[in-house]
Amino acid sequence: MFSVSMQVRDYECDLQGVVNNAVYLNYLEHARHQFLQHLGVDFAQYTAQGVHLMLVRCELDFKASLRPNDRFDVEVALQRESRLKYAFVQRIVRHPDQSLVAQARAIGVALNPQGKPFVFMPFEADLTAEG
Amino acid sequence: MFSVSMQVRDYECDLQGVVNNAVYLNYLEHARHQFLQHLGVDFAQYTAQGVHLMLVRCELDFKASLRPNDRFDVEVALQRESRLKYAFVQRIVRHPDQSLVAQARAIGVALNPQGKPFVFMPFEADLTAEG
Amino acid sequence: MFSVSMQVRDYECDLQGVVNNAVYLNYLEHARHQFLQHLGVDFAQYTAQGVHLMLVRCELDFKASLRPNDRFDVEVALQRESRLKYAFVQRIVRHPDQSLVAQARAIGVALNPQGKPFVFMPFEADLTAEG
Amino acid sequence: MFSVSMQVRDYECDLQGVVNNAVYLNYLEHARHQFLQHLGVDFAQYTAQGVHLMLVRCELDFKASLRPNDRFDVEVALQRESRLKYAFVQRIVRHPDQSLVAQARAIGVALNPQGKPFVFMPFEADLTAEG
Repeated sequence: MFSVSMQVRDYECDLQGVVNNAVYLNYLEHARHQFLQHLGVDFAQYTAQGVHLMLVRCELDFKASLRPNDRFDVEVALQRESRLKYAFVQRIVRHPDQSLVAQARAIGVALNPQGKPFVFMPFEADLTAEG
Repeated sequence: MFSVSMQVRDYECDLQGVVNNAVYLNYLEHARHQFLQHLGVDFAQYTAQGVHLMLVRCELDFKASLRPNDRFDVEVALQRESRLKYAFVQRIVRHPDQSLVAQARAIGVALNPQGKPFVFMPFEADLTAEG
Repeated sequence: MFSVSMQVRDYECDLQGVVNNAVYLNYLEHARHQFLQHLGVDFAQYTAQGVHLMLVRCELDFKASLRPNDRFDVEVALQRESRLKYAFVQRIVRHPDQSLVAQARAIGVALNPQGKPFVFMPFEADLTAEG
Repeated sequence: MFSVSMQVRDYECDLQGVVNNAVYLNYLEHARHQFLQHLGVDFAQYTAQGVHLMLVRCELDFKASLRPNDRFDVEVALQRESRLKYAFVQRIVRHPDQSLVAQARAIGVALNPQGKPFVFMPFEADLTAEG
């Protein structure tokens, strides 16, 4: 399972004293982009070439709160959603007991410079390897 | 339908040149908190008193991108999800043609100072009034 | 004096219950970009054409805190700093009494697609008009 | 010299393709709070007890841009500014050549629960030790 270790930064916490909901999307995106790097895909370079990796849907379940200084892992696993849609199944788990903080399912597509979804070979290769 | 009018700020856009996904959660939260104000509920005051209004789940569908300077409305409607869970059904629609940018379903609970969910009367009053 | 009216959004507040320092830079940038619009300069379009308007220095004095729901104005005035540097003199003042929350001096340059600073005519026109 | 190693996350970049200016304040704050931890001071706990560590001024010089995936250090050194004011002298330097990205001088105070600045012993101890 691919995962990225991170730590809460105080500025990510809101007036409830816990990490703000929107910041979870930041964490999840950062982990997905690190996963892309792991597959040999540089998000910024693809963007500069007109290939846009975009989400079409995201589902999140918030199970517990992250607090200042908490350390946690963000996991990423790729699954096929349909021929042109890919699902990133993600979990945020807190150290040291790996308790579940949040889980997410983010559905993405790769758009070519004309804005059309296409079969993204780096994802296909990972799906085949996992198969 | 309760709604809040907003405009994209350049710093909310990422290297794809469009509003970053996580910022949609900011927009949706701001609209929900304005909706709370409309119901007479001040989020910060409740927080200071130990009552925490929290999301337990959020589903978002991204339909189109918001770009620099775009103006848009964020709509909020409250529905009952279960006895102690409330659903905020939300849409982000772009001006001037009211085209759909994103839709969301955010499920929330009210926690008392002991961390237990309770029946939140301001929401009940709104649900009854809408009934 | 050019100014933009804004209102604190709860997600901009941190665990001290007030607007986080970094968010002031967001507010100040948004007001500068609105000021650019007022001068007929679209920041995103210039960026897409390879002209980068960038800060080289920023000084901020924090005088008071902004809290949830506070309304405030962000003022912008342009001054010449040197032949190729421009100073944005800015203030954040809270409603309704126009009390000073923060003041800033942001020094910027315009870089051409080769990365060289150049005399930016829209700023020169404003400086002459103010003269 | 106290320093924290970090890496640019894509969501921190704006439509110019580089880290947004306001994010530098996030980086600087995170490094200061890690420095506080190093001194035995937990920012969130002090806040909960009504002791507010706040900035009254910040000066930043932007020397170069940070781009996606860049790794960098944020340095923190404490200096006395006056009897009740403390200066955090900070630099952001990019890997691997330690080139200067930004330098900052952040002036802070410690406020007691009544909102009065006071002599903050953990800072005094560090200043004496450095002396």
